[in-house]
Amino acid sequence: MVLPAPMHRPTDTFVEQHQDRLLEELKDFLRIPSISTLPEHQPDIAAAAHFVAESLRSAGIENVEIIPTAGNPLIYGDWLHAPSKPTVLCYGHYDVQPPDPLELWHSPPFEPAIHDGNIYARGSSDDKGQMYMHIKAAEALRVVHGGKLPVNLKFLIEGEEEIGGASISKFVAENPAKLKADVALVSDTQLYAEGLPTLCIGLRGLVYMEVEATGPDRDLHSGLYGGAAPNPISGLIELLSKCKDATGSIRIPGMYDDVAPPAPVERESWKRLPFDEAEFLRREVGASELTGEAGYSVLERVWARPTMEVHGIAGGFTGAGSKTVIPSKAVAKISFRLVPNQDPEKILTSFGDFMQYNAPPGIRLQLRVLSAAPAVLVDPDHPAIRIAAQAFSDMLGKPTVLTRNGGSIPVVGDFARHLGVPTILMGFGLPDDGLHSPNEKYRLANYYTGIMTIAHFFEKLGEQSGAMTS
Amino acid sequence: MVLPAPMHRPTDTFVEQHQDRLLEELKDFLRIPSISTLPEHQPDIAAAAHFVAESLRSAGIENVEIIPTAGNPLIYGDWLHAPSKPTVLCYGHYDVQPPDPLELWHSPPFEPAIHDGNIYARGSSDDKGQMYMHIKAAEALRVVHGGKLPVNLKFLIEGEEEIGGASISKFVAENPAKLKADVALVSDTQLYAEGLPTLCIGLRGLVYMEVEATGPDRDLHSGLYGGAAPNPISGLIELLSKCKDATGSIRIPGMYDDVAPPAPVERESWKRLPFDEAEFLRREVGASELTGEAGYSVLERVWARPTMEVHGIAGGFTGAGSKTVIPSKAVAKISFRLVPNQDPEKILTSFGDFMQYNAPPGIRLQLRVLSAAPAVLVDPDHPAIRIAAQAFSDMLGKPTVLTRNGGSIPVVGDFARHLGVPTILMGFGLPDDGLHSPNEKYRLANYYTGIMTIAHFFEKLGEQSGAMTS
Repeated sequence: MVLPAPMHRPTDTFVEQHQDRLLEELKDFLRIPSISTLPEHQPDIAAAAHFVAESLRSAGIENVEIIPTAGNPLIYGDWLHAPSKPTVLCYGHYDVQPPDPLELWHSPPFEPAIHDGNIYARGSSDDKGQMYMHIKAAEALRVVHGGKLPVNLKFLIEGEEEIGGASISKFVAENPAKLKADVALVSDTQLYAEGLPTLCIGLRGLVYMEVEATGPDRDLHSGLYGGAAPNPISGLIELLSKCKDATGSIRIPGMYDDVAPPAPVERESWKRLPFDEAEFLRREVGASELTGEAGYSVLERVWARPTMEVHGIAGGFTGAGSKTVIPSKAVAKISFRLVPNQDPEKILTSFGDFMQYNAPPGIRLQLRVLSAAPAVLVDPDHPAIRIAAQAFSDMLGKPTVLTRNGGSIPVVGDFARHLGVPTILMGFGLPDDGLHSPNEKYRLANYYTGIMTIAHFFEKLGEQSGAMTS
Repeated sequence: MVLPAPMHRPTDTFVEQHQDRLLEELKDFLRIPSISTLPEHQPDIAAAAHFVAESLRSAGIENVEIIPTAGNPLIYGDWLHAPSKPTVLCYGHYDVQPPDPLELWHSPPFEPAIHDGNIYARGSSDDKGQMYMHIKAAEALRVVHGGKLPVNLKFLIEGEEEIGGASISKFVAENPAKLKADVALVSDTQLYAEGLPTLCIGLRGLVYMEVEATGPDRDLHSGLYGGAAPNPISGLIELLSKCKDATGSIRIPGMYDDVAPPAPVERESWKRLPFDEAEFLRREVGASELTGEAGYSVLERVWARPTMEVHGIAGGFTGAGSKTVIPSKAVAKISFRLVPNQDPEKILTSFGDFMQYNAPPGIRLQLRVLSAAPAVLVDPDHPAIRIAAQAFSDMLGKPTVLTRNGGSIPVVGDFARHLGVPTILMGFGLPDDGLHSPNEKYRLANYYTGIMTIAHFFEKLGEQSGAMTS
């Protein structure tokens, strides 16, 4: 295999010399089918937590503990013997998605296979292969620095990321002192393109609701009552159709009032991205054309503009054949993605008022809020971001691009809210890794480069003294 | 029990004298749980078919046969010894709806109970109690007329009405000579109100479709693609919201072009109906207000205007909790109720064109037609209708009202299409009989009155000679 042009840092050499062992250890980790959503895999969850704890211990991390929760265990560990240096909180998850449909895999999902420079296995990119890089970077640094690390490290690894992450969210809120750090590091994202150093600095927020519409108090026969009885499916359709205008703009009052536009440095960075709209449409979306708010580029629309989406709708008869019912109820699952400066509570209130005001005759509405979290944006001028970008550029030989991600990583919001720290999203996956899909893979070169880059980042960070603020 | 003021026709006296036996026989019929939709009740279906055949034979009907079909058996029988007289084709069904939820029944659904002048049992009103009146009217006439009937009778009884009636539809199409008649008689409807003689002369038609919208060719993550990827749920919502305007009028081009308004005699009749809109809203619909096309009364809207209804909609994630998916597909079940002179094919074509023309960007549509049948309207001046109305008025002492029903009874369309005969819908149920619901009941007085009225109708019809045309 081809490693990137070595710059002969000692940690690079360590990785090169131990590449076979580093791969075999990752394979052992990937062989554990730690599927969090399937109860029959609870023993595998326990095995994966144990594997993580042992890996931390053998990397020289101290105070390692497997912390029981109401769900799957957390693993904590730290190394805190660099008193004047920054502290990094490393996060990752050891749970994985189910592998089905199994018949689409070219090799068994829990028996790692190497082809064309990739390792194929469920969890290889999301997130076992990426979180394991943090541990191996610590090990490399400890070896080459005679048992010492250039920064203080805390590790917090969860096993519920694929099922909502309730336990870690509670743990972070309840243990701010234990988790106190200067910056958090998460490797659960992708390079924008192969070989392009990428830091994700923005995540959209999310408010998610269920809207239930009730018409008649019982299901009615449409022959006898059609033309007089209010139909809650039609009511929902009418209401939801009013939420956007013909240009794709959201009509909820105040929706755009607080939207902060991207900083100039971000816009500049986005222009340098090798984004190909036709490829995006064909390979990623697979539809006949793209849609969305008029007047904004695709990247702006998915990263920096609020959007409204109907995720699910159900009502009436949906079996095979026909049934002429006017149902009593219909329900839709709706979310707004939020961008920096938008207040989830304000959006929720405005949406609720809009829905009630526009409720069609005879239709009663019930809104249930399932979650509400604001957007997260890391200041691109934060020193840790600048250092991470430099370390990344050093390694790959290109300027680091700053991207956003239209999705949400709730733990990043928890770190910001409860610990007051920014998160560096330094991921080494690739856009075609097939997360949550059959034949998930992780590029082997990126695994090794990732370990080297993280070690280099820790070393550069160690050149700083004490706490960092932007 | 109180019978209506007897007019001392011999058949009335027969019914009065045999009321206990007529009730016991009906109870025996109702004890057979002939639920057509549940395969484990196939022996009961067979038992009910046998019961009907035996009842016909003991009433003096000849050539009785149980006709096997691909589904449940039909029963045919006839009496054809009145060569210069009209022939009536009597239709009914011996199958019933499932009784669940069982816990809401005050007495076992298949153990008939008499309370407050009603007989409570599944099938008492729909349709065993009503179809049995035809057989008992024939028996009464045969006894009082010394073995003869005043008209020719053919009976065709089915056991699949509650599950779509596929077998009878095929049988009618294939056996027009065997079923040749002047008029059909169906007792499977209700009096408009207690004591009010009611003939239903119009049924709406129905075209029923499934519309499937496809956006991306796979489910997408709304965080990563929301704002750029077409959402098929939103596409369906946008499309369906365009189908009606703010006044409830259907916007499909040509929808109202061919609509025939009700005849003056019908409008006059509707004005005499004791329709109470507030009661209808409260007791039957159970919503906060009524809806529908502006400028038309409730009865016009449900009986004589085309309507569009969304019966079901499904797409995306509809389980508990939240999932941020942009689904690949969404589907809706949609129907139009049609009124006289509307052509189902023309409406389908226009709707298909409208949907394709208005399909939002990125959304592909597939339309599947599940059924298409025109409205049925019996000429209120047809001699058989006039005679039936007169017989009904004679019996109940009030002028007969002509109503319509917003639903469809497919066999009536089959009789019109394949046999060329009008159907007299002379039912004796009441609006609160609870068809398809727990505690279904049939008013005992209406059972006896029904037998008397049908016998009287056959006698009056027998005063005619030969074929009847309007």
